[in-house]
Amino acid sequence: MTGASDATSPPIIDAEAHHKLMEQLSTIGGGPGGALTRLALSEEDRLARDWLAGWMKAAGLRLEVDAIGNMFGFLDWAGSDAPRIMTGSHIDSQPNGGRFDGSYGVVAACSAIEAIQRKVRETGITPKANFILANWTNEEGARFQPSVLGSGVHSGEHALEFALSRKDADGITVGEALNRIGYAGSAESVIPDALIELHIEGASFLENAGKRFAAVDRFWGATKYRVAFIGRQAHTGPTPMAERRDAVLAAAYLISDIKAIADKGGLDMHTSVGRLEVYPNSPNVVPGEAVLFIELRSPEPDLLASAEEELKAAMQEAARRASVEVEVRSIDRRKAGRFDADLFKLAEETAAALGEETMRLDSIAGHDTVAMASVTKGLVINVPSLGGVMHHPSEFTSPDDRAFGVQILAGMLWRFCLEGSGLIRRRS
Amino acid sequence: MTGASDATSPPIIDAEAHHKLMEQLSTIGGGPGGALTRLALSEEDRLARDWLAGWMKAAGLRLEVDAIGNMFGFLDWAGSDAPRIMTGSHIDSQPNGGRFDGSYGVVAACSAIEAIQRKVRETGITPKANFILANWTNEEGARFQPSVLGSGVHSGEHALEFALSRKDADGITVGEALNRIGYAGSAESVIPDALIELHIEGASFLENAGKRFAAVDRFWGATKYRVAFIGRQAHTGPTPMAERRDAVLAAAYLISDIKAIADKGGLDMHTSVGRLEVYPNSPNVVPGEAVLFIELRSPEPDLLASAEEELKAAMQEAARRASVEVEVRSIDRRKAGRFDADLFKLAEETAAALGEETMRLDSIAGHDTVAMASVTKGLVINVPSLGGVMHHPSEFTSPDDRAFGVQILAGMLWRFCLEGSGLIRRRS
Repeated sequence: MTGASDATSPPIIDAEAHHKLMEQLSTIGGGPGGALTRLALSEEDRLARDWLAGWMKAAGLRLEVDAIGNMFGFLDWAGSDAPRIMTGSHIDSQPNGGRFDGSYGVVAACSAIEAIQRKVRETGITPKANFILANWTNEEGARFQPSVLGSGVHSGEHALEFALSRKDADGITVGEALNRIGYAGSAESVIPDALIELHIEGASFLENAGKRFAAVDRFWGATKYRVAFIGRQAHTGPTPMAERRDAVLAAAYLISDIKAIADKGGLDMHTSVGRLEVYPNSPNVVPGEAVLFIELRSPEPDLLASAEEELKAAMQEAARRASVEVEVRSIDRRKAGRFDADLFKLAEETAAALGEETMRLDSIAGHDTVAMASVTKGLVINVPSLGGVMHHPSEFTSPDDRAFGVQILAGMLWRFCLEGSGLIRRRS
Repeated sequence: MTGASDATSPPIIDAEAHHKLMEQLSTIGGGPGGALTRLALSEEDRLARDWLAGWMKAAGLRLEVDAIGNMFGFLDWAGSDAPRIMTGSHIDSQPNGGRFDGSYGVVAACSAIEAIQRKVRETGITPKANFILANWTNEEGARFQPSVLGSGVHSGEHALEFALSRKDADGITVGEALNRIGYAGSAESVIPDALIELHIEGASFLENAGKRFAAVDRFWGATKYRVAFIGRQAHTGPTPMAERRDAVLAAAYLISDIKAIADKGGLDMHTSVGRLEVYPNSPNVVPGEAVLFIELRSPEPDLLASAEEELKAAMQEAARRASVEVEVRSIDRRKAGRFDADLFKLAEETAAALGEETMRLDSIAGHDTVAMASVTKGLVINVPSLGGVMHHPSEFTSPDDRAFGVQILAGMLWRFCLEGSGLIRRRS
């Protein structure tokens, strides 16, 4: 522990302890080949939350749970006037997803907080910031839509009643699911002064550039439509083709057109249809209903708006061609924007002190910190993911890269311990 | 009962009793608005089978169940040299299907047999034919694929082991499901000398022509493919469009192309994709797998064969465009053909005696009698369905039309009572 008493040097994280924590959490909902299925508010989520609550208690953090199930671990050691710096992510996963998306950010927050606690003990300094460890509810949007639901409620974007009444495919509401797993709390909303989220990249820009650290400058906007085509069930045999009202055919036309919107939009336009529900989905029944979960994403608000117009026209055209009706069931829009420049600079400085350049990236995926960016200074920082894979069992970030990310996060938090609100009041 | 003792006149069916029987059966698996969900070998199917077994016992028919669960009620009253005439259909249904598809043919067989039994008692004649009332297993192919499974085993088209090992979406095999509901029997296969199936039309040719009775001349062939596109799960946000391997996009291209095959084939070509399974089917995961249940149907073998070639080329092209792999998981082919001319003539004569012309139709849907046409003389006869609807809760045939169909079926069976094998040995 040479130099451990030097307050100006960043705390050294315990990489082995971090690795073990990550492995512990990975067993909850884990499957073969690196698979993880820990759907929001499922039994697996409950077990993982209990595990996290146990860690917080052992670390001396005060756990509070709010009405949408967000978990906050408070480290109030700097007095009520000191800024509150939040870090964390989410521990829910996609079905058959990977181990690191979200979970890494939560475990990294644990390890970074543990490192600054140790450094405070060793140096005897008086910290100038309080900290909050966050685990947000239903980031993934796999079981319940929309995604980033817990942070969306916290930022005031979604009304609590709206969020609690969202239903999964079995008709279970978020509110019911929260009660079942015992995570419907009553904590009041606390808006932090800064929010830092460490996340695996989920694309291969870092890997391709041979770099190991990035901070996010722009975050993309997203427009999500849930669209239903309503046809008419009929026998796939005798029903004359001209009389069919085939909901899946309309879906096929639209999926093809949605891909064409991306082709036209170039690198600044991503589109997808990730979920498609077909009713009754029997081999010899012409489908009577098809529901599409459509996403359009772009960093350019104008491009996103024109893509939405194209989508609306394509929906009508697909319905016309297949002689079905079309209904928009829900629309969810997330604005494009930029993260906080002070936090970006802090990340750059912290990485530079560790001899690493900071790559400037866009965040295309939604993150809780994007949802919170309208109410607080936020920043997402990234370490590489192998092959750019995310939302798949083979999702992987090497232990070294993971430890390096935690080291940077701990360094950033330490700067807040030393400098307090001065770090982020420059622009406000 | 004037003229009841005149053996040359057809038996008069008890329309009211028939109507009540139909209503009884409709309650098993019945839902609101005429809906029926009685999936093959489900608990509802078991209840309906028990009900049918009860009817057979009360009517003096000897029940035998074979290893694939087909139920046969034997009326052996004409000696072992007399021909065996089979009639019946199936009592399984589509999910959220209608009440009359299949069930009407079974209940009609009950009512027709009841009518000829009564007429034999009243006239004192010695019948020249034995009768078998049939209920075939898994005609619909909704829970287990392929469809017409029980009759396909009976005709020798499918090996018993193949049929018993088919699995539903939960991985339950036909064999397990048969054991669960207690309908795994051991009766030996009996090939009848003739097989007549009364069925609702399921299209609107009769209704549009203002007629009420049809017999089927041609039956269409069908080629069914189960095709999987294998892509790669990835996040719908950051994953660059150029790196995506989107299985649903390939499915969309193929569904569109399959519709184009029908457009090109004209009235003699029907195509469909009724079922589409998407994995993992989460809104912000690029789908890693999509499985399509494809049907091509035509009365013209050459047209069907060329459509299959087009399908194979379209599969490859769709996979190439979406950068995914393609796998054919199963292929099922049913040959086109013609029903028995003697039975067709018998239907025409019976209808004419009741003052009704017989419309000549194609059968496009699969029927158990089509599956059996390779081993016995068969005929499907039809009464109108309102609006041509089948496989939908609004499926409907008026009580008068239903009774008329039963009357014709009873008349045809009565001719066998009077004339025996002479009616069908003319061509053999």
